Amino acid sequence: MVLGLRLHSALYPSWGLACLLPRSFASCPGKSDSCLTMPQLGLLHRRAWASLLGQLRRPPGAVCIRVVHSHSQVAEATLTSQLKPHQEKSNFIIKTPKGTRDLSPQQMVVREKILDMVVSCFKRHGAKGLDTPAFELKEMLTEKYGEDSMLIYDLKDQGGELLSLRYDLTVPFARYLAMNKVKKMKRYHVGKVWRRESPTIVQGRYREFCQCDFDIAGQFDPMIPDAECLKIMCEILSGLQLGDFLIKVNDRRILDGIFAVCGIPESKFHAICSSIDKLDKMSWKDVRHEMVAKKGLAPEVADRIGDYVQCHGGVSLVEQMFQDSELSQNQHALEGLRDLKLLFEYLTLFGVAEKISFDLSLARGLDYYTGVIYEAVLLQTSARAGEEPLNVGSVAAGGRYDGLVGMFDPKGHKVPCVGLSIGVERIFSIVEQRMKNVGEKIRTTETEVFVATPQKNFLQERLKLIAELWDAGIKAELMYKNNPKLLTQLRYCENMGIPLMVIIGEQELKEGVIKLRSVASREEVAIKRENLVAEIQKRLSES
Amino acid sequence: MVLGLRLHSALYPSWGLACLLPRSFASCPGKSDSCLTMPQLGLLHRRAWASLLGQLRRPPGAVCIRVVHSHSQVAEATLTSQLKPHQEKSNFIIKTPKGTRDLSPQQMVVREKILDMVVSCFKRHGAKGLDTPAFELKEMLTEKYGEDSMLIYDLKDQGGELLSLRYDLTVPFARYLAMNKVKKMKRYHVGKVWRRESPTIVQGRYREFCQCDFDIAGQFDPMIPDAECLKIMCEILSGLQLGDFLIKVNDRRILDGIFAVCGIPESKFHAICSSIDKLDKMSWKDVRHEMVAKKGLAPEVADRIGDYVQCHGGVSLVEQMFQDSELSQNQHALEGLRDLKLLFEYLTLFGVAEKISFDLSLARGLDYYTGVIYEAVLLQTSARAGEEPLNVGSVAAGGRYDGLVGMFDPKGHKVPCVGLSIGVERIFSIVEQRMKNVGEKIRTTETEVFVATPQKNFLQERLKLIAELWDAGIKAELMYKNNPKLLTQLRYCENMGIPLMVIIGEQELKEGVIKLRSVASREEVAIKRENLVAEIQKRLSES
Repeated sequence: MVLGLRLHSALYPSWGLACLLPRSFASCPGKSDSCLTMPQLGLLHRRAWASLLGQLRRPPGAVCIRVVHSHSQVAEATLTSQLKPHQEKSNFIIKTPKGTRDLSPQQMVVREKILDMVVSCFKRHGAKGLDTPAFELKEMLTEKYGEDSMLIYDLKDQGGELLSLRYDLTVPFARYLAMNKVKKMKRYHVGKVWRRESPTIVQGRYREFCQCDFDIAGQFDPMIPDAECLKIMCEILSGLQLGDFLIKVNDRRILDGIFAVCGIPESKFHAICSSIDKLDKMSWKDVRHEMVAKKGLAPEVADRIGDYVQCHGGVSLVEQMFQDSELSQNQHALEGLRDLKLLFEYLTLFGVAEKISFDLSLARGLDYYTGVIYEAVLLQTSARAGEEPLNVGSVAAGGRYDGLVGMFDPKGHKVPCVGLSIGVERIFSIVEQRMKNVGEKIRTTETEVFVATPQKNFLQERLKLIAELWDAGIKAELMYKNNPKLLTQLRYCENMGIPLMVIIGEQELKEGVIKLRSVASREEVAIKRENLVAEIQKRLSES
Repeated sequence: MVLGLRLHSALYPSWGLACLLPRSFASCPGKSDSCLTMPQLGLLHRRAWASLLGQLRRPPGAVCIRVVHSHSQVAEATLTSQLKPHQEKSNFIIKTPKGTRDLSPQQMVVREKILDMVVSCFKRHGAKGLDTPAFELKEMLTEKYGEDSMLIYDLKDQGGELLSLRYDLTVPFARYLAMNKVKKMKRYHVGKVWRRESPTIVQGRYREFCQCDFDIAGQFDPMIPDAECLKIMCEILSGLQLGDFLIKVNDRRILDGIFAVCGIPESKFHAICSSIDKLDKMSWKDVRHEMVAKKGLAPEVADRIGDYVQCHGGVSLVEQMFQDSELSQNQHALEGLRDLKLLFEYLTLFGVAEKISFDLSLARGLDYYTGVIYEAVLLQTSARAGEEPLNVGSVAAGGRYDGLVGMFDPKGHKVPCVGLSIGVERIFSIVEQRMKNVGEKIRTTETEVFVATPQKNFLQERLKLIAELWDAGIKAELMYKNNPKLLTQLRYCENMGIPLMVIIGEQELKEGVIKLRSVASREEVAIKRENLVAEIQKRLSES
């Protein structure tokens, strides 16, 4: 089953090539035992592979080739065949991986505006920056995410450590705290995370996306940091002008209490929690069915759960729960209710209580939460004229995770933590859509001055002039042409929104001046060369 | 060889566990055929595994376990055993993956300063931002990096596309241009790239590192964009005050011409190029030996090469090469020399020619360069008193790659490109070392005001006050304690370098004032509550 291939190529003179068909091939239809030799294959070119694959009538899927270097070094290359059986295509498709995308300059401008706003809020609350690697030792991520662990991207075992791409920024933060024995820290982290989500990209869901996290680690008096996290979420969501929003709040201990009171065995807590978490996408009827049919709950137990988890309200609901004769006997629930009451008190002082809803259906998927949990949702306002309504669901979430750091500590020492994560991809979709709807034009460069000439053979003077501007810190561009047309240069400034133009020609050179033109007003004035930088800086500071 | 395990755990109630030993285990010493059952294993805890591994006398290496979900879903988890045979250790080591690191808040401040400076230079030259995913389809990266392809991180095949972490920002940029049929673009990109470099972390070399790239794509008049790239490198290296530096410049076409003139067969061009690239680390004698003994060059051919590649100088060397009777007959070399002459002319106009050295030994490793290439090195100044000299080698590099975009285009349409990449990790090491040497203290937060109280039971008033400050955009912190001591609060401000303190107590509350204290001067004044925000803003704008 080994294809012997030799390469005679200028690019890979000393490389021999042996193609090993993948093990799975043995069980594929259309397999061939014949040994192909292609002594003049030349470059390891995709078309050659397509032809080779065609000869083998290879079914779609992956083909592994092993390239053996003559100096006993080995490299492996793997190609995904784009070929369908009986439907061969010799061009390969240029694309980004499924669930990922490039951000164009226009999108980058929007993204940067949003991130600046988020980070400045984190800094306003005294957070320090932190960065962690994109991948972690695989074992650092195990046992942290429950059923979601299946969505973790693993790296190929290429010798050495087994690695996985980070799934969130929270677990690396906890790992950092444990590793450096840090007992107290307020940090923010903006970075990409990766999740092998189901292929449908809807509602701004990607497999690679950016998270903005803020967390407070340390042993403090109850609910003060927790309240600050909710205040931060309010400041960011208000600041980004995303329309009306609501933050649902609950507590894992209250949920545990409810489950216990309803008679659910402790072993089923997590499974029921994950069913309840679906209440924002599924009706109570469907969730009830799942709990009864799939998770083996007695119908009457499910109904008792239903009575609870369909409740939501403000601080009055907390009071109401305190009156619940059964729930108030449960130690866990009681602790959760007391903390929520205190939380509402602090949120009132922060002036954001009216944005918060105590919602017993909020469960949050991740395993590591231990106390208060929250999730911010945008409220659908009546769609404005011409504006497509965009359903984005949750845009920020978080909670308390007092046990996570202890999972990393050899002695199990705990560091209580509470934090939040802003889902900027979703916010980004909204802001982008809004800008499209209003037809807002985005400048993708910050260029302030364009260096132009109306004459031929003035490249040298333009280069000298632009270097002066750059050295003075002025953002400047010119055409990379020996003899550009003046009209082309003017149009470029107008298209790119460059406010100022400096023009140099023979006349100006003779008189020791430069023409300074305002692109918008088309006014031109001649300015002494030695005063040019100062004049430009004056104009820019005025605008 | 299957270990039957059942889990009875609160966390994984519905999960059964089957442990499959890895295939490689069969050939390991100390293997055991016995079937272990651990009905009460409980959590999939690392210590339990350690014990299991101990019973099996597993040699060091990876153990794969397969966790089978009862709902027919399958997840895989892999643990790297930290166990050495006969030297078992039940604690696992918390660390970042080999060749990677966290950036602490102190490091983040330094990093951000450097990146801000670099990006502002890119923007000064009219570049647009762009972002691409951390991974690409594996086939996008093949055939681009020559021998360095072995350093690419592949992702595990978890079904779907075969992916690799990006190796640089240049190939994704070329992929973006081809995919979107962009013919002209000036973009910058700051992002992480990943390379499985040899384990020794010296000279600021990491497996994950940040690159800052600036590239100009498009068909323009010769050497104008190329000269701008070199000007940018000078601006950045001067701006960061890294000491004296030099930019070596060469042209792939001149190297090709030299090789042809010396009688090297074209098939060996790349191999000889990669030998010459080592001249900055190896002596000419050793490089010559490699070319003769390993790459099969005749000794007299190697000596002819030696005569050329040991030359370096300014524009006069370009003139000297023009006089070379053989080289000036070679079309490739002639084009390269003409372009270099023009480049030096433009660099003189930009005022940076004295930083540039025409160095025939510069070859650059990557396959995709087609014309001018360059590399910036810091010059070792005599180490200042108490300062450890830090050898960092190349800190920025780049060149022209006119064929790369065409490799992605189905019809092979070319888009000429030239660009540069700043190696910020290395620059970062230098700046960090310099700050350590001078004992510079770095503020890791930007907090402007601390809200304090000298009295007990004043949390509510503090919370109300700090919310006012936050809502006015003032960066503020308080202690997360119900009753903090005033001295603790004062010390915190001093340690963290927070300039202002606002103090509220019973007396102030009664009089409707707040005490505003300058932490440095210890001066305190009482200010009417309604004027507080304005007064703080005034003080901050003055400082």
